[in-house]
Amino acid sequence: MGQDCLMRITALAGGVGGARFLRGLRDALDADPVLAQSEITIIANTGDDITLFGLRVSPDVDTLLYTLGGGISERQGWGRDEDTRQVMGELAAYGVGPQWFGLGDKDLGTHIARSLWLGEGATPSEITTRLAQRWGLPERGLRLLPMSDQPVETHVIVTRPEGPEAIHFQQWWVGEGAATPAERFAAVGLDRAVAAPGVLDAIREADIVLLPPSNPIVSIGIILGVSGVRDALRGTPAPVVGVSPIISGKPVRGHADTCLEVVGVEASARGVAGLYADFLDGWLVDPQDAGQPAPAGVRWTPRAYDAPLLMGDRAGAARLARAALDLALEVGSATPAGVGGA
Amino acid sequence: MGQDCLMRITALAGGVGGARFLRGLRDALDADPVLAQSEITIIANTGDDITLFGLRVSPDVDTLLYTLGGGISERQGWGRDEDTRQVMGELAAYGVGPQWFGLGDKDLGTHIARSLWLGEGATPSEITTRLAQRWGLPERGLRLLPMSDQPVETHVIVTRPEGPEAIHFQQWWVGEGAATPAERFAAVGLDRAVAAPGVLDAIREADIVLLPPSNPIVSIGIILGVSGVRDALRGTPAPVVGVSPIISGKPVRGHADTCLEVVGVEASARGVAGLYADFLDGWLVDPQDAGQPAPAGVRWTPRAYDAPLLMGDRAGAARLARAALDLALEVGSATPAGVGGA
Repeated sequence: MGQDCLMRITALAGGVGGARFLRGLRDALDADPVLAQSEITIIANTGDDITLFGLRVSPDVDTLLYTLGGGISERQGWGRDEDTRQVMGELAAYGVGPQWFGLGDKDLGTHIARSLWLGEGATPSEITTRLAQRWGLPERGLRLLPMSDQPVETHVIVTRPEGPEAIHFQQWWVGEGAATPAERFAAVGLDRAVAAPGVLDAIREADIVLLPPSNPIVSIGIILGVSGVRDALRGTPAPVVGVSPIISGKPVRGHADTCLEVVGVEASARGVAGLYADFLDGWLVDPQDAGQPAPAGVRWTPRAYDAPLLMGDRAGAARLARAALDLALEVGSATPAGVGGA
Repeated sequence: MGQDCLMRITALAGGVGGARFLRGLRDALDADPVLAQSEITIIANTGDDITLFGLRVSPDVDTLLYTLGGGISERQGWGRDEDTRQVMGELAAYGVGPQWFGLGDKDLGTHIARSLWLGEGATPSEITTRLAQRWGLPERGLRLLPMSDQPVETHVIVTRPEGPEAIHFQQWWVGEGAATPAERFAAVGLDRAVAAPGVLDAIREADIVLLPPSNPIVSIGIILGVSGVRDALRGTPAPVVGVSPIISGKPVRGHADTCLEVVGVEASARGVAGLYADFLDGWLVDPQDAGQPAPAGVRWTPRAYDAPLLMGDRAGAARLARAALDLALEVGSATPAGVGGA
């Protein structure tokens, strides 16, 4: 491999898990004298987007911005560092809900800016570019793209005593802790959503495509539903490597197992790999899951990580991301120009 | 005067001066065992309203709400007590302006609620009622009405080196400290503004009408321009008594003298009284201005207050409001039912 190798890495990502993995990836690249100039293009799920208090909130995009830009609340994993809740307190006093989605004051600054720009006619892509500039992403070789400029909102059809009800994914996930029995998900608007500018090219022209341990149904799964994305993944010459979000049947974070259950997929590393089988070239799993066979029809076997498949702290995330990167370099059948074998 | 006399007092008001005067009036009434049950209807100027960061701000209504409801920043005279500036800091970091209108986080809670409700189709009247409930105004005998449900925005045509420019009143007043030479004011939308529900009846059916020492041009003057308001004041049987916002040629607060200059009216207690001459029945002035004659054509002489015409602290405002009230009771030619002479 030559010096100053500019590798183009593209990743699909949801919120907290994706953001921590990608911060780790950036750290891993920065620590590598050969790969430090590499660029990461992130295709963010926007199916979690929600309008709260008349303001447009894009939770996964914001978590990615704050985590990669150094403004995240490390304790929560989402929202801003050292934030306050003055605005929410006032809204509660005025009887304005919902109160289950805790928006800090600094965080609201982002939502107010986004809503203002949307009102002025800017697209989510343009807005994400503006927000990313403030967070210093471009100069660190990080390009953040929303999956689509069309609004997509994942709803959950839950089972209430009085019958089924469709609620916003965030209400189910945050407001009800994903504890209310769900019948199915409905990604409202997804059938009309086209990929945002740059998204398909980022997959087609990547040297490596990575799937962080994001939720396979409501994060990665929604991105895969955007017109053209799945075909681009199937057709890209780049190796596509994923990291399992499930360890021994349990999600690393969040309620991915519940989501898999809702759609009738086994909550296992193998179950998730099966959802990606048509385009996946490599799959990093926890040592506990090393014995599971690959999904039917694939030519690879899952690769066991050499430690529990957890990110832990920032250094641990960098180590995991490096392992996924190395697996991709290893399985890459179509070696990109300038990137020789190890 | 009988016990438990319910007097209906209606006042036109701008922001800080009007709010402090009316808090004083409420205090004065509360301290009077006979008049404590009296009700005050406040007709608020909404010509200062402005959309900032995509949120609708109604500065005079908010100053009245916060002052009367116990949430005002006493130091500033406007905005919320113990507020923070987290949101504005973020907006600045995103390059979103303007920054000259300092909105605190708590204050923004009000603007977010208002904007949300406007988006849901509520009128400014309905929204003001909701906001006033949170601030406990109804149970204290305070009814707050916006002058109109139609948007009115006072603009200022300023003189720039490169020629005249129309800017929002708030930009001139707050952003430029009213220091930029102004040619004239233009109340955009005022010619189409009809009085909000209850406004004209509150004037017609009042026992007393008071004009606090608010700005005669950009606060009271705008309210007077709403269709029907001036006629209602001319026709009401209630005595109409005002408090001069000018002492010896200088405004008590703000830039009323500059505003008067722009419209070519003498910056004096007499000059202001002349603007109200067609409906005014009494005029309270500073002892320094006692020698000034009444405007041409009126049958009354200005009444000198027995101290400097300043509100000072809350007790001072109550004392001044009581003096205006007493003057109104004295000059009231059409004595309302239930209110006998002193």
